[in-house]
Amino acid sequence: MGSIEKITAGIRPAYKDSMNEAAERLDKLIKPIGSLGKLEGLAVKISGITGKQNNEFNKKVIIIMASDNGVVEEGVSAAPKEVTSLMTLSMLKGVSGVCVLSKHAGADIRVVDIGVGSDLDYPGLINRKIRKSTSNIAIGPAMSREEAILAIETGIETVSQLVEDGYSLFGTGEMGIGNTSTSSAVAMAFLGCSSEEVVGKGVGLTEEGYANKKSVIDRAIRVNKPDPEDPIDVISKVGGFDIAGMAGCFLGAAYHRVPIVIDGFISAVAALTAYRINPLVKDFMIPSHLSEEPGYRIVINEMGLKPMLDLNMRLGEGSGCPLAFNLIEAAEVIISDMATFEEATIKDDFLIDMRK
Amino acid sequence: MGSIEKITAGIRPAYKDSMNEAAERLDKLIKPIGSLGKLEGLAVKISGITGKQNNEFNKKVIIIMASDNGVVEEGVSAAPKEVTSLMTLSMLKGVSGVCVLSKHAGADIRVVDIGVGSDLDYPGLINRKIRKSTSNIAIGPAMSREEAILAIETGIETVSQLVEDGYSLFGTGEMGIGNTSTSSAVAMAFLGCSSEEVVGKGVGLTEEGYANKKSVIDRAIRVNKPDPEDPIDVISKVGGFDIAGMAGCFLGAAYHRVPIVIDGFISAVAALTAYRINPLVKDFMIPSHLSEEPGYRIVINEMGLKPMLDLNMRLGEGSGCPLAFNLIEAAEVIISDMATFEEATIKDDFLIDMRK
Repeated sequence: MGSIEKITAGIRPAYKDSMNEAAERLDKLIKPIGSLGKLEGLAVKISGITGKQNNEFNKKVIIIMASDNGVVEEGVSAAPKEVTSLMTLSMLKGVSGVCVLSKHAGADIRVVDIGVGSDLDYPGLINRKIRKSTSNIAIGPAMSREEAILAIETGIETVSQLVEDGYSLFGTGEMGIGNTSTSSAVAMAFLGCSSEEVVGKGVGLTEEGYANKKSVIDRAIRVNKPDPEDPIDVISKVGGFDIAGMAGCFLGAAYHRVPIVIDGFISAVAALTAYRINPLVKDFMIPSHLSEEPGYRIVINEMGLKPMLDLNMRLGEGSGCPLAFNLIEAAEVIISDMATFEEATIKDDFLIDMRK
Repeated sequence: MGSIEKITAGIRPAYKDSMNEAAERLDKLIKPIGSLGKLEGLAVKISGITGKQNNEFNKKVIIIMASDNGVVEEGVSAAPKEVTSLMTLSMLKGVSGVCVLSKHAGADIRVVDIGVGSDLDYPGLINRKIRKSTSNIAIGPAMSREEAILAIETGIETVSQLVEDGYSLFGTGEMGIGNTSTSSAVAMAFLGCSSEEVVGKGVGLTEEGYANKKSVIDRAIRVNKPDPEDPIDVISKVGGFDIAGMAGCFLGAAYHRVPIVIDGFISAVAALTAYRINPLVKDFMIPSHLSEEPGYRIVINEMGLKPMLDLNMRLGEGSGCPLAFNLIEAAEVIISDMATFEEATIKDDFLIDMRK
């Protein structure tokens, strides 16, 4: 049995008793029942993950899977593929969007080169390069089945190592020019929806470029015929190393029972891939923001998840995760630090007087 | 000239040059233009408020206006009016929702008794009680015009004092059983919309109670005939001390050029009141979350503002403000700490190589 099967078979459902206990405590706090909305749901969900009512996240991390995509040669992206390498280095130097937001949130970043097209060497980079870029999905599969499995295992192993290092709250991010195209193809393969529904204009595409992007993705589906019942077939034929790696992160997080945050569209497609491998992972995933990419809504709805932030963001990189980390911590202080009605009235003579 | 007129006349528009400079810098950062959505808009807006491109908020505060409402005797609320006093004390003790969230955000809280129905005395309470509760708006005006002016001035003076104390980022909150009813009446008076559109079920009202709430608010409008062209007439006839006090906070913040966050429905109605007194205050207001109260959307749309958080919250207290503070700080680290394309390429020989 390979590592994916072992990990997948080892994922257990959320702890329902802990969730019930958390919900009971929330209903006793000095507030109208349910009035803290999704923050209450978050506290309950996290109790289901960890089995504890109160949780503190002292070490938080966002894993960034960086990889190039062969489909870029079809002109689906306005940015040249060299930008993948450039931006990966910017992340290692701490000056990209996800970096400054993570630092503000007290979270660390780990950048994994899982398939960047150039030779990268920079302090802190985790070199797990499977190959320099996937192949062009418009003419054949992105990667072999073995490579897809290796990429998923890379994600699982990255999470395992970080759990060992003491991290207890995870986020997912990516860097890879062309990965909205591969993500769109994966979403279409799983959900049977059209390129018209899923594909966004990406960054700075003209009307002509946009039409081309949709037709290239349609072709990728026609040429490869991914089997929606076989997630590894889908990811190997029309996905990317980054998406596969992130899918592995979701599986690994569920196995280790640590909450893991979904960023935008690409991250959500990776989450869907993991969800199709084992639906139980959903209980460990936390959505962050409503991405501007049109496919995001479709994918997140498919999993029955609801984003918490509405910021018109479409940067990717994992940039929604540090913002969600703050909301997760807010949910935890609510369940840990707010008084119950009983505490508020019994502990203070004055308050008892007020109730007479 | 009274204090309101003086403050109102002293409000200056946003600094357009600073906004343009901020927008220019954002467009040079290593990200697709506009891809950080509302966070970019926030950084621009704050530059317009302070006149500076980079802003740090070392002292943050949420002002909570606590007051009772005479209309509670009509049975518009499922909670007894004593809860106002109880919850005000809980805030002073730091155990209510807004308190634990503010502590998490590194923000302080100031609780102002502007009209609580009982004699409160607790360390930290700012006693600016105008009267013990407003009068019942279903049978006559909530307060005299003089009292409304005093309540607005109380808000202005509270902000002025806190600015003097070094606070540079503000939030608004309230505590007052019955204040969704007064807020609904104020929104209806200003916007001419119906109770059906604006009034929510509040907390735990039955269908019968909900019908009664709407009919009481309709009666308040009929009996008092508030003049929509005269914001002080509206607030004195169908408002509350808390709403008037918060409206004063918005005016004061605009005068002192400090950003001030809108919480939920009641806070938004106070913002609308200030906006009707002087539309320039809009440039200093920052929305936080999409409240579950039905009137919220109508009021926030009227001002052309868009909430950033979608959490199904309906607690009030100012609980959305500390969550928005984190997003404001996130916007500031983006404009301050992200590299520009020029910085990323010029400062590092390796990156220049990558671009060849």
